[in-house]
Amino acid sequence: MNEWSSLTAGLPVWLEQARHAAPFGKVASYIPELSKADSSMLGIQIRGADGRSVSAGDCGSPFTLQSISKVFTLIMALMDNGEEIVFSKVGMEPTGDSFNSMLKLELVQPGIPFNPLINAGAIVVSSLIAGSSNEEKITRIQSFLGKLAGRGPLQLDEDTYRSESESGNLNRSMAYFLTDNGVLQSKVEDVLEVYFKHCSLTVDCGELARMALVLALDGVDPDSGERLIPRRYVQIAKTFMVTCGMYNGSGEFAIDVGLPAKSGVSGGIMALLPGRAGIGIIGPSLNRHGNSVAGVHLLEQLSKEFDWSLF
Amino acid sequence: MNEWSSLTAGLPVWLEQARHAAPFGKVASYIPELSKADSSMLGIQIRGADGRSVSAGDCGSPFTLQSISKVFTLIMALMDNGEEIVFSKVGMEPTGDSFNSMLKLELVQPGIPFNPLINAGAIVVSSLIAGSSNEEKITRIQSFLGKLAGRGPLQLDEDTYRSESESGNLNRSMAYFLTDNGVLQSKVEDVLEVYFKHCSLTVDCGELARMALVLALDGVDPDSGERLIPRRYVQIAKTFMVTCGMYNGSGEFAIDVGLPAKSGVSGGIMALLPGRAGIGIIGPSLNRHGNSVAGVHLLEQLSKEFDWSLF
Amino acid sequence: MNEWSSLTAGLPVWLEQARHAAPFGKVASYIPELSKADSSMLGIQIRGADGRSVSAGDCGSPFTLQSISKVFTLIMALMDNGEEIVFSKVGMEPTGDSFNSMLKLELVQPGIPFNPLINAGAIVVSSLIAGSSNEEKITRIQSFLGKLAGRGPLQLDEDTYRSESESGNLNRSMAYFLTDNGVLQSKVEDVLEVYFKHCSLTVDCGELARMALVLALDGVDPDSGERLIPRRYVQIAKTFMVTCGMYNGSGEFAIDVGLPAKSGVSGGIMALLPGRAGIGIIGPSLNRHGNSVAGVHLLEQLSKEFDWSLF
Amino acid sequence: MNEWSSLTAGLPVWLEQARHAAPFGKVASYIPELSKADSSMLGIQIRGADGRSVSAGDCGSPFTLQSISKVFTLIMALMDNGEEIVFSKVGMEPTGDSFNSMLKLELVQPGIPFNPLINAGAIVVSSLIAGSSNEEKITRIQSFLGKLAGRGPLQLDEDTYRSESESGNLNRSMAYFLTDNGVLQSKVEDVLEVYFKHCSLTVDCGELARMALVLALDGVDPDSGERLIPRRYVQIAKTFMVTCGMYNGSGEFAIDVGLPAKSGVSGGIMALLPGRAGIGIIGPSLNRHGNSVAGVHLLEQLSKEFDWSLF
Repeated sequence: MNEWSSLTAGLPVWLEQARHAAPFGKVASYIPELSKADSSMLGIQIRGADGRSVSAGDCGSPFTLQSISKVFTLIMALMDNGEEIVFSKVGMEPTGDSFNSMLKLELVQPGIPFNPLINAGAIVVSSLIAGSSNEEKITRIQSFLGKLAGRGPLQLDEDTYRSESESGNLNRSMAYFLTDNGVLQSKVEDVLEVYFKHCSLTVDCGELARMALVLALDGVDPDSGERLIPRRYVQIAKTFMVTCGMYNGSGEFAIDVGLPAKSGVSGGIMALLPGRAGIGIIGPSLNRHGNSVAGVHLLEQLSKEFDWSLF
Repeated sequence: MNEWSSLTAGLPVWLEQARHAAPFGKVASYIPELSKADSSMLGIQIRGADGRSVSAGDCGSPFTLQSISKVFTLIMALMDNGEEIVFSKVGMEPTGDSFNSMLKLELVQPGIPFNPLINAGAIVVSSLIAGSSNEEKITRIQSFLGKLAGRGPLQLDEDTYRSESESGNLNRSMAYFLTDNGVLQSKVEDVLEVYFKHCSLTVDCGELARMALVLALDGVDPDSGERLIPRRYVQIAKTFMVTCGMYNGSGEFAIDVGLPAKSGVSGGIMALLPGRAGIGIIGPSLNRHGNSVAGVHLLEQLSKEFDWSLF
Repeated sequence: MNEWSSLTAGLPVWLEQARHAAPFGKVASYIPELSKADSSMLGIQIRGADGRSVSAGDCGSPFTLQSISKVFTLIMALMDNGEEIVFSKVGMEPTGDSFNSMLKLELVQPGIPFNPLINAGAIVVSSLIAGSSNEEKITRIQSFLGKLAGRGPLQLDEDTYRSESESGNLNRSMAYFLTDNGVLQSKVEDVLEVYFKHCSLTVDCGELARMALVLALDGVDPDSGERLIPRRYVQIAKTFMVTCGMYNGSGEFAIDVGLPAKSGVSGGIMALLPGRAGIGIIGPSLNRHGNSVAGVHLLEQLSKEFDWSLF
Repeated sequence: MNEWSSLTAGLPVWLEQARHAAPFGKVASYIPELSKADSSMLGIQIRGADGRSVSAGDCGSPFTLQSISKVFTLIMALMDNGEEIVFSKVGMEPTGDSFNSMLKLELVQPGIPFNPLINAGAIVVSSLIAGSSNEEKITRIQSFLGKLAGRGPLQLDEDTYRSESESGNLNRSMAYFLTDNGVLQSKVEDVLEVYFKHCSLTVDCGELARMALVLALDGVDPDSGERLIPRRYVQIAKTFMVTCGMYNGSGEFAIDVGLPAKSGVSGGIMALLPGRAGIGIIGPSLNRHGNSVAGVHLLEQLSKEFDWSLF
């Protein structure tokens, strides 16, 4: 990465510029626990394939993965079941998630969710995680994601989990609809426990950047060189990140940034430069699509500056 | 009713003719317990305001009210809360129920069900029945409906109730959607217990005809002369029966029969001649709209013969 | 009609009371020509089966029939083609018309409009009017409706017709959708000419009341005693008027007034008391459903006062 | 391209293998003129940045561009109007086109099409092509696309144009809906003439490969080195090709092939390897998504063999 020195020099400046966008967004309010976040916070870490890393801003605070976790539960479901089973229960077609509509579930034949990154799809994916008990499934997720983050098992934020579970009636509605359609076969509350818990696992920017780096390296651990994920499943995950990783702002993001990325309503964004680097961002103030408003600005700036777009 | 003697003479003949339509329908299969019904069964009782009654066919067997109960829980919710509260949570506009779509819930502003006779609306109505506990609510419904039927409390068919509750995932999905919209404020499983239980109360044709007769008499008990329901609420109930009492076949039924009526997937139909008579029918073989195929034929024949249409 | 004297005495008073509701509504603006109407205008004529009539308010001004004409083109299409052909191309099921959505066209199998009173259905009905040329079809409509109104052919308001045709792009969109579905077989612009022209025929309150009276008398001319419409087709028309004659306010109107009625966005309302009277109203200020706000108030008052509801 | 020799050697073999998939698809039938195509035909040309090219199969026959033309009219609309104007009238969000639904048009606020590659979006784009007359607009398109193809103006297939125009009632319906929404401001039949005509321009595989090569080279002519398209607009076009270039099969194609591509119902596919090559394919037998069934198989084989996926 021959741009490393200009990146190191410029990052703090671009971060402070991007932070000015934060007041134009809003912290997520539909989950009470999330609404407590500091709206002016912005932090980033970029971790190169060569072991170097650079960070700027508010990097130390932990935050919950929220929808970012869907990328990794998809990978686990693929590793546990294979492509054929997973894609018999969830589609491959891009569509933004509108957060409040079940219309789309009804419009697809035969009633399976459009893709694994919208809520309905991610709930189906959660039901495909292997484990003889709910506890085992969740423990497996904590361990696997922790390994990708270069640490022990990820911690669960109990308050956020409870908050999500209590306010998650639209997800419950979708889960029962999918049950009625025959797509979901496990008990709804069991599946939702797994789903809400993996959304409530915490990381910091550095850990998120390392998780992204494993994907950038096609599934190989940057330190040990161990293959953690089959390359094919990383390719699938990256493709979904490009086509529908940023909710209803995915198309605009693909044009303006052009990198595989996934956001969460906590304000986290995970992005990656194939073969070269992983990026972890936190900025809780969200734009109308539910993506970190300052985080997206920062990525646009960086992509333009260093011509990072895949397209 | 100067047609009484020709009615008495003709009824057994018309019933046997209508019974020939039964093989063109199908017994409800989506609730396992209902699928056990005898598809060739057909029975009717007509009970006049003057105390006379006539019956024909298989009149003795008990059957569950299913959606017919929605007319009476609406009346109870109106008596318990008044019009203003009830119609702030459920609309007045006719639309057939398609049984398998949530689309309509999303298309109405502000997200309240179209009317109290579609499933979503009836679930909201169930949440408005007064009572300090679920048990009390259900006991009140059993007593009130029993009184209209001219007997003690209606009995619950436990097997049907369990069957409905176990297979009722689309209703669960709707209930959580309504909760998310803020329309439903009670606990979902509590509301659904009330809903599934009032659908599983049993009557026979004669009891159903008497319930209809109370409505035909604008809410007055045909024997005691006691007012059981305010006239205004009977008027409201009758209007909904005309505009949406027969699922997606309501419009056709209004043209071909022209009487206030409500059907259930058990094959029951309650119909009434304003001021003159109540009618109870059972015929479990259903047409594509979910109405008793032979029962509808019989009512068409009677309406044409005696010019009963309100229109 | 033993209430005739109190009706005659009270009508001017109730009309002035109802006129107070006019400022709470709005004159139709989507058709430029209609927006010129006087929003405070309110007029009514009631015409009894016995030849008596009473009127109040602004009765003399002519107005265009708009959607009220759909009742009569339905009757003509039935007389020209029979029930079977008409109802193979348009359904019988009640649903309000939302004025701006094509969703419903897509949700019905096999893609036919729900009923003949929503715009899409009325366009299909217009295509079924007999005639070897568009001119002949329109002339037939003018003559038939004129006969019902007790006069020569109804006049076309050319300015309104042009205004409707120029702004009628949603109707064009629906017509091409129906063509693509195979439901509409004539040339779109030809059908729309017939449709927009019958919407632009003018009457005054007295003429509208007489048209209603023919329906109240099951199709018989009140003066000559001649049968103008087969009774069955009047029954069909009255049923649709009850279930979907007042746009998305049909259910509420059925509960609060309880008479067969049809409104138009010009502010006209045609209502009828079966066997007894026809009513014609004009009041251009519309409520949110597109019905004359003062006109509906007046009918509610009259229905309550004289217990006119069919239910 | 160090894989060139194995590509040259293998291409005829892989093409014949892929041709076996043709019988599993169906030639487009909704446009009569297209249904005449030979379903077993399959041809490909690959044209490298260095001037080399390789072809196999039925490469000589001309075919119509159909939806492939939408990529280039988008580019022209951007060059004629700038990003701001274009994206005020059409969105950026991926969604497959279902070919027969207008639902999506209603579900987006403020009623603009989701993206420029679905039919509704492409119709809006057609209205943005500069020109003082319809003839001038079409001539400009023929010239610009011809220049990209390395030849004079592309020829119009008159029979296909007439066939499309005559059967294009769903497109007409969409155009009038967009007019009603205020998104489309030109005369509907004028816009549709431009739209149907650019869909009916003909190319052969070699010309299509050259058009793709210009995009692969970020807008620069491979022979003259002249910049034909600003790089930013090529980037936008390539992004849409990845997220929604293959109708409802875009997501699956992104996973299994991973190249920017656009298909048409004539059976044409244009694909590109950024910086390296352009690909033109014709194979009229279509899979259920409307993409050349054998063409997609061939691209899957090539992408796997040479690891071409961008992801």
